[in-house]
Amino acid sequence: MGMTITEKILADHAGLAEVSPGELINVKLDLVLANDITGPLAIKEFRKIGVDRVFDKDKVVLIPDHFAPAKDIPSAQQCLEIKEFSREQGLTHYYEVGRNGIEHCFLPEQGLVVPGDVVIGADSHTCTYGGLGAFATGVGSTDLAVGMATGEIWFRVPESIKFILKGKPRNPWVTGKDYILAIIGKIGVDGAQYKAMEFTGEAIRDLSMDGRLTMANMAIEAGAKNGIIEPDEKTLAYVKERAQKPWKVYTSDPDAAYSEVIEIDVTNLEPQVAFPHLPSNTRPVSQATQVKIDQAVIGSCTNGRWEDLVVAAEIIKGKKIHPEVRAIVIPGTQEIYLRAVKEGLVEIFVNAGAVVSTPTCGPCLGGYMGILAKGEKAISTTNRNFVGRMGHPESEVYLSSPAIAAASAILGRIGSPEEVA
Amino acid sequence: MGMTITEKILADHAGLAEVSPGELINVKLDLVLANDITGPLAIKEFRKIGVDRVFDKDKVVLIPDHFAPAKDIPSAQQCLEIKEFSREQGLTHYYEVGRNGIEHCFLPEQGLVVPGDVVIGADSHTCTYGGLGAFATGVGSTDLAVGMATGEIWFRVPESIKFILKGKPRNPWVTGKDYILAIIGKIGVDGAQYKAMEFTGEAIRDLSMDGRLTMANMAIEAGAKNGIIEPDEKTLAYVKERAQKPWKVYTSDPDAAYSEVIEIDVTNLEPQVAFPHLPSNTRPVSQATQVKIDQAVIGSCTNGRWEDLVVAAEIIKGKKIHPEVRAIVIPGTQEIYLRAVKEGLVEIFVNAGAVVSTPTCGPCLGGYMGILAKGEKAISTTNRNFVGRMGHPESEVYLSSPAIAAASAILGRIGSPEEVA
Repeated sequence: MGMTITEKILADHAGLAEVSPGELINVKLDLVLANDITGPLAIKEFRKIGVDRVFDKDKVVLIPDHFAPAKDIPSAQQCLEIKEFSREQGLTHYYEVGRNGIEHCFLPEQGLVVPGDVVIGADSHTCTYGGLGAFATGVGSTDLAVGMATGEIWFRVPESIKFILKGKPRNPWVTGKDYILAIIGKIGVDGAQYKAMEFTGEAIRDLSMDGRLTMANMAIEAGAKNGIIEPDEKTLAYVKERAQKPWKVYTSDPDAAYSEVIEIDVTNLEPQVAFPHLPSNTRPVSQATQVKIDQAVIGSCTNGRWEDLVVAAEIIKGKKIHPEVRAIVIPGTQEIYLRAVKEGLVEIFVNAGAVVSTPTCGPCLGGYMGILAKGEKAISTTNRNFVGRMGHPESEVYLSSPAIAAASAILGRIGSPEEVA
Repeated sequence: MGMTITEKILADHAGLAEVSPGELINVKLDLVLANDITGPLAIKEFRKIGVDRVFDKDKVVLIPDHFAPAKDIPSAQQCLEIKEFSREQGLTHYYEVGRNGIEHCFLPEQGLVVPGDVVIGADSHTCTYGGLGAFATGVGSTDLAVGMATGEIWFRVPESIKFILKGKPRNPWVTGKDYILAIIGKIGVDGAQYKAMEFTGEAIRDLSMDGRLTMANMAIEAGAKNGIIEPDEKTLAYVKERAQKPWKVYTSDPDAAYSEVIEIDVTNLEPQVAFPHLPSNTRPVSQATQVKIDQAVIGSCTNGRWEDLVVAAEIIKGKKIHPEVRAIVIPGTQEIYLRAVKEGLVEIFVNAGAVVSTPTCGPCLGGYMGILAKGEKAISTTNRNFVGRMGHPESEVYLSSPAIAAASAILGRIGSPEEVA
């Protein structure tokens, strides 16, 4: 019996020739990640374990990105804690404000995660790195502390669901975000509970790396343990430019076992919008055009990458943001921000009346940089639209791709790029 | 007996031929300003007055800039309140996030304040506009509400202190910020209590408009009612490019009466640093070089203007921010930000490892975008270094010019541009 890519990576990291779903295995970690919110909790747990040093000072990454630059005194204290711990432990990969970005944009960009890695992060969207063909998953701060101390973690091997995305979308604005929203809409927010979501097929091969990272990023929104895409020539081209360490390409065997195989034809897929208050509450954008908005957010670990800004700029260029709308563009990293400055994207956004923020998770999780008041509605390229996620419990968040968010910012209501004159 | 520029502006706006210090007069207002913090309070008071409409929809300005883009739910509610009031009243000059900037940078830049104006603002640094030869002062929200309703306010005519700044500084890094810090250091934080600080002399004439606005901005830090500088050809060149309305140049009579005349020779003045916890606690930078810093802030209504960014970029160009320092650059307005993008300043800052924020008051008043943890020290181009002003009560803020803040960001301690290799 063959193995899936997920099973192969886990087997190799457990020193086993073979693993099967349901098996409990102890896995060696290539990278352990925390941020300014989860880092302090993990450090507290780490202190209790009774070891002095992290297992490997090159494999523990701490990044202040959620409420940084610090939004208030508690977040300043949290940033200080991870900074001081990094100094104490001599961590190679502590990244200060101004030299970092949103963790899940920053790590792949900097080549800190490569195909075949096993990565845990005290952040639910750690699953992003599956877009590179790594096994990556979010864990709690206690598990993370153990990982920091030992470099190992126990996993139950997940079953895999295979998603085969066929066809080429006729609508030119359909992106990886629309695929993953459509999938979550189809299977629900617990549709892949503790499973590996393996994305395959022509439509996935046609996706850029940025689009693939977006898809893997939202696997957790269907309850998955991880999302994963087999590396191909695009992956390797991306990785070769960046990798700070060797990588290993794993692929699924033809006879690997899946708990389910789901085929989706994307040919006639429309851009998707997830209505409040669940990512699974998706509708085609054509059924959302009555929704007036007060704010548009383009950014986050889901859609703050280069191509996301490019598509938004393409739509916004020469236009004006609707007078009733605040448009907030948040590049995912300093590198992406710098490129957007150099290549004229920031100029397009500012000329249109949008704000361009320094990289931060900010509004996505109700942190800062665009929190919603009572009754306000936002279209957002972020990943969650739970009650109160971006501010007041009576505010509303609609999830979409950057193309739809950009068009909506101009229209003052949810809409498509075709509608922008 | 002649009158000072302050007395002449007030007399004209009170419909009187002459006024004297101590006299209570009713003055017509050219502009009434509030922001996202003070606006909601003023609106609440306005509702109690029992009039339906503001006195003039073209003369009431509301700008969300302090905690905007909204840092949390309360600030989002406050932003929404001033937005809704602006709609209700049909205000011409409501400026949404993305189309604004820090109020005291934005209003002069947009030509909304001109020489000879009387302006009140529910913000203590409203005195900034004195740099243009306007009478401008901060008021409480109740006074502001009356101003919004009636277009008039009662003032006691202030006595004037004349500051004559002589000479040309030998140190090329000495700026208007150093002049005003030196003055406040000399006379103390109540040295000009309820008085007009009139800045004159060769060194003032040699200052750019940006430098003059910086000086007037900090008049309140000596307790003054207003700071003011007679318009000259530089003022008029600045105003002609921008003014949205006619202006009137007032100047002090040669025989005007001053409560005090203070002469300062700037020839040998060093750049100044105000130590915690008072703006008057000034020392020459050469006596501050032992102070290690964790953060450098370049921005605010005091020093977030074009020339401020230019001098900072000049020093930072090709260098790296010290690894232990967070450097946060905050352009004062979207226009300044856009110019900094186009002319390569943002590239310089980001390449050095600094963060460039969207325009906001943010960290200056402990809002967000760089709040200090316990024990942290910041050098900052802002205007106040009171206990806890930028974060934790046990943090420290050192005030300086952009040149000193930029050099310090590279050095990791307070220092001068000459020390930057």
